[in-house]
Amino acid sequence: MRSLPFLNVPIVQAPMSAATTPQLVAAVSNAGGLGSLPGGYDEPQTIRERIAQTRALTDRPFAVNLFVDTAYDAPASDDALLRAHERLRPYRDELGIPHPAEPARSGLAFAQQFAVVLEARPAVFSFTFGIPDADALRACRDAKIFTIGTAKTVDEAIAIERAGIDAVCMQGYEAGGHHGSFLAPLDDSLIGTVALVSQAVDAVSIPVLAAGGIGDGRAVAAVLALGATAAQVGSAFLLSDESAVPPPYRRVLASDAVRRTTLTRVFSGKHARGVRNRFINEMTDAEDIAPYPQQHWLTRDIRTAATAQDRPEFLSLWTGQAVALAEPLPAAEIVARLMAGARTAAAHAVEALSTA
Amino acid sequence: MRSLPFLNVPIVQAPMSAATTPQLVAAVSNAGGLGSLPGGYDEPQTIRERIAQTRALTDRPFAVNLFVDTAYDAPASDDALLRAHERLRPYRDELGIPHPAEPARSGLAFAQQFAVVLEARPAVFSFTFGIPDADALRACRDAKIFTIGTAKTVDEAIAIERAGIDAVCMQGYEAGGHHGSFLAPLDDSLIGTVALVSQAVDAVSIPVLAAGGIGDGRAVAAVLALGATAAQVGSAFLLSDESAVPPPYRRVLASDAVRRTTLTRVFSGKHARGVRNRFINEMTDAEDIAPYPQQHWLTRDIRTAATAQDRPEFLSLWTGQAVALAEPLPAAEIVARLMAGARTAAAHAVEALSTA
Repeated sequence: MRSLPFLNVPIVQAPMSAATTPQLVAAVSNAGGLGSLPGGYDEPQTIRERIAQTRALTDRPFAVNLFVDTAYDAPASDDALLRAHERLRPYRDELGIPHPAEPARSGLAFAQQFAVVLEARPAVFSFTFGIPDADALRACRDAKIFTIGTAKTVDEAIAIERAGIDAVCMQGYEAGGHHGSFLAPLDDSLIGTVALVSQAVDAVSIPVLAAGGIGDGRAVAAVLALGATAAQVGSAFLLSDESAVPPPYRRVLASDAVRRTTLTRVFSGKHARGVRNRFINEMTDAEDIAPYPQQHWLTRDIRTAATAQDRPEFLSLWTGQAVALAEPLPAAEIVARLMAGARTAAAHAVEALSTA
Repeated sequence: MRSLPFLNVPIVQAPMSAATTPQLVAAVSNAGGLGSLPGGYDEPQTIRERIAQTRALTDRPFAVNLFVDTAYDAPASDDALLRAHERLRPYRDELGIPHPAEPARSGLAFAQQFAVVLEARPAVFSFTFGIPDADALRACRDAKIFTIGTAKTVDEAIAIERAGIDAVCMQGYEAGGHHGSFLAPLDDSLIGTVALVSQAVDAVSIPVLAAGGIGDGRAVAAVLALGATAAQVGSAFLLSDESAVPPPYRRVLASDAVRRTTLTRVFSGKHARGVRNRFINEMTDAEDIAPYPQQHWLTRDIRTAATAQDRPEFLSLWTGQAVALAEPLPAAEIVARLMAGARTAAAHAVEALSTA
């Protein structure tokens, strides 16, 4: 197995924008795994502060994750953006919040976010939605920052290896949150984890992480059997003590509704997996959805108000397909259970095969 | 692990209508697994003959598989059926075959197919698309025929257990061919194998088989780690020496096109996974597709002609997402490699976890 120098246990905590706190990142890294701080939706100064907060809690390596913007869809025209904005008016009315005269727009730029990463030099820089340009990757190598790309197909894994990136995280169909395909349309890039991981392991020589549907130790053992170097786990930490998931979101995650997730672009303009709710059902066929990341900024005030008003029907309830296995425990205990469960499951597989 | 009395090795060959021969079924059973003879699209007399042919090649247990018809969609009206029939005229013109005056219709009935199973008494009766009625299940118990249902969700697994069925095969999103959800719409029933299997194992006490994306021994070890009693493997046998897959289909399976599969209802009216081709791309948005099984009979002459004329662009090229791992070998050798690969993979997982 290709080893990763920063892992004592083969567990990476997935960067989850709604859930991740410096406390969660540090707890996973302190437990021997790799915590990941998401920064894709954050101002450079916020990323800087959260890195500092994490460093105050751990001396161990952790990752900072950004969204690469090389593969964005063409932005909406002003007219289309206005229509997408207008389409949201009924939800603002229902929530009793003002309908802004102008559509909200992002002020974020990858280059400025990335500059903070370079300056802060975390042990690992991970990214999704594409491949940073050669200058950025060279800067990481010069700064001795280990890089991890995200791929949804074997072709994307090969492109990531060829770009000189140090490892690749294969994101299976089961995964919660955004799906980061960048070389082919999403329809051709949805491959289940059990089929995806081994094919990627065969196609590249850099270490392969596996993500998507890894809900407990049994699945950690499964992806190691498939040839992954480590499991990237998101949903299993959503209910952790250190998770920032707000109460309405947490309540849905603990309910049976969690078994019905879907891939939707109604919240951000890019497909992401979350629990099916009223906003998804009503908006799915709407033509007036702006491309990523514009839709994210258009819907942000609605999600903020829905959180404050305890209305999960308007929230992006991102989660993977195995979240029903998640437990409300300290993150360190979750890591320990993942490892204990993985050891039991792997031993079980060996035994089942030895008697056959 | 809950054991299955008819398995010496934890490998079930999936019933694949285009590929399965009595030779394939017998070879897998003779190798200690369980071969499965598909009968869903066959006349009762054909099923009877194929069971006899299989028995001439093996004394070991094997399964006969049927499509349960309890959960079919409402049939198309005569007008809609005629429109779906007419929609296919350009393909018949292109293939130079006659356009029938009347839409083709099925003369098959589950009750008559099932009567053959009861009469022949195979060791195992497996089925998909629903749950046979209580009389049929009682008849299986009385005849000491072991029953295996197919589920795509935990709710369906629970329903299968409650009906008194002996085991359940959990069919993950990755699976090739038809997807047999019957309690919820397909959109809410597409769960990746790695997320699905453990949740089903926790929810029922009958043995759980795992299907979907199991392309080689690594994936066999993976699903055993997830808690499955056995792996149901389809695509890995598609290129076997005993497979009946016709030359144009086989050629596509050995090409890079095989990485782009999709779920489509254009061939049968029910969603099934196959290699994306021209017929799928052109017909996907067509409104004039008859419900299952009517569309299957409407398109049958086109598929027959396309096979004869070596035109894979009009064929239903059913396969799962891991078929790129399939090898052209005798089925017995495939079973042996699956087992050897599984043992290596499980031992690898144990070692990776022991050093952590």
